[in-house]
Amino acid sequence: MSLLVVGSVAIDNVQTPTARRDNLLGGSATHFSYAASFFTSVRLVGVVGEDWPAQHTRMLQDRGIDTSGLTQVAGGETFTWTGRYEPNMNDRETLDVQLNVFGTFDPELPADYREAQYVFLANGVPAVQRKVLSQTTQRKLAVADTMDLWITTQRDDLNALMNDLDGLVLNDSEAKLLTGTENLVAAGHAVREMGPRFVIIKKGEHGAMFFSEHETYVMPAYPTPKVIDPTGAGDSFAGGMMGYLTEQDRFDPETLKTAMAYGVLVASFNVEGFGLERLQEITRDDIEKRMRDYRQMLSF
Amino acid sequence: MSLLVVGSVAIDNVQTPTARRDNLLGGSATHFSYAASFFTSVRLVGVVGEDWPAQHTRMLQDRGIDTSGLTQVAGGETFTWTGRYEPNMNDRETLDVQLNVFGTFDPELPADYREAQYVFLANGVPAVQRKVLSQTTQRKLAVADTMDLWITTQRDDLNALMNDLDGLVLNDSEAKLLTGTENLVAAGHAVREMGPRFVIIKKGEHGAMFFSEHETYVMPAYPTPKVIDPTGAGDSFAGGMMGYLTEQDRFDPETLKTAMAYGVLVASFNVEGFGLERLQEITRDDIEKRMRDYRQMLSF
Repeated sequence: MSLLVVGSVAIDNVQTPTARRDNLLGGSATHFSYAASFFTSVRLVGVVGEDWPAQHTRMLQDRGIDTSGLTQVAGGETFTWTGRYEPNMNDRETLDVQLNVFGTFDPELPADYREAQYVFLANGVPAVQRKVLSQTTQRKLAVADTMDLWITTQRDDLNALMNDLDGLVLNDSEAKLLTGTENLVAAGHAVREMGPRFVIIKKGEHGAMFFSEHETYVMPAYPTPKVIDPTGAGDSFAGGMMGYLTEQDRFDPETLKTAMAYGVLVASFNVEGFGLERLQEITRDDIEKRMRDYRQMLSF
Repeated sequence: MSLLVVGSVAIDNVQTPTARRDNLLGGSATHFSYAASFFTSVRLVGVVGEDWPAQHTRMLQDRGIDTSGLTQVAGGETFTWTGRYEPNMNDRETLDVQLNVFGTFDPELPADYREAQYVFLANGVPAVQRKVLSQTTQRKLAVADTMDLWITTQRDDLNALMNDLDGLVLNDSEAKLLTGTENLVAAGHAVREMGPRFVIIKKGEHGAMFFSEHETYVMPAYPTPKVIDPTGAGDSFAGGMMGYLTEQDRFDPETLKTAMAYGVLVASFNVEGFGLERLQEITRDDIEKRMRDYRQMLSF
């Protein structure tokens, strides 16, 4: 099976209440790919500038991630994001964004990428997400992420995208914004009625909620005492989930629920270090061990 | 087995974004008692004024709640609370508080109440909570709630109380205030190190977390789309939990976890109506049905 992800590849500069780290390997497609690589091979589509360190590409390749869809623009600069987290480590302020080469990202999928059966469109311009989706010819499951900016400014394109999707992933404040509904349970189902067959609302430190026509459930976050850097938590959640679904090559309700749990757990590791550092320390065995703890935690 | 609760009995005036209701039966000990009455008999200690409607007392008695510890002060007025909920239904503003007869609440337990084996000290002045606790002679399990006001102004008394408790229940912002720690997992264990054998952090719509020396777990809230009035959710959580523990007459880790789940579910009903109205519509069977849904939701 093959998993395709299209999204940002970035250099992040992160400030937390206790530390500051610059030049971290970041971006939605990067966190997603690394998280998914515990479960399956991944085909990554993104764009970087001439400043992009070659060792980042090699590191991703060492994880079995196909980077033939990662375009390097001569003379361009890589997307950079600089942000500062509040003491609660959930709220953050964006201090600087330089879209650079990502500002005109409009990918043409390599021929062999078009056959991908599992597709994740990381947060991006909805019209571009839709255009990418239309290039895939054998997809079984298409899931996308979005953000407040597109909800506010590209609503028609987002509506069109939602009709083409199997699943939409968004965070709690975005779900409220999209629906005008404060109750997350009502909001989740209201988003689902806009098109996607299922909707996942990410709640940061409080876990994630799942909505389909016949199911509503919540999965709490794994309670880690060590939150170092939440950047990429949502993308690593999606990567863990989609990676597991691709590995299993099915997405019936039971498999989707297990996949949600894997997503929650991979995200819990992601936040335990800056950038991808913690994920680079662990193995699938560590994820499985935490899964046993998590199942135990939720059984009584 | 017998369950004793000491706390406020009040008249609430509640404003939500869509409705306003006055003269609701409220108070921490009231919500707790009603919630616990699905599982066990309850001995209630509180104080009301001459304005207290007798039908409220009869309604509690009809639930098997012993109100011989409910003192009525001639010429006094009942504690009243008036508050307004924000659109998110989690944050609220207190518009008016009239402590009235509750301002000098310093109860002497009736003789037969002193033999209670399960004791819950609802939110109140820590020195008074401690004094009440010292009157109980056969307690097996003592749990208390507290609030930001006492953390800030009565810290020594609260510290002394914590050393006498088996369990402390508090909400997320109070746990952060008490410990100076923003990470709730770390905060929960830091509170535990202040004395209680176990600590429960209530997170409103996001559920509750449990901390003992060897256990850390999270239980999500039951995802109800119908949040009408969150007043008393925390007390009904505690009532459901303590009611179940009293019914079972044990509090080993497995029973405590099941009790937490019952607390979460009773609270989920509590918020589906103003004051006690929704709890007055349901039976133990409704709770058991929701428990089956909840177990299903958490299994994969």
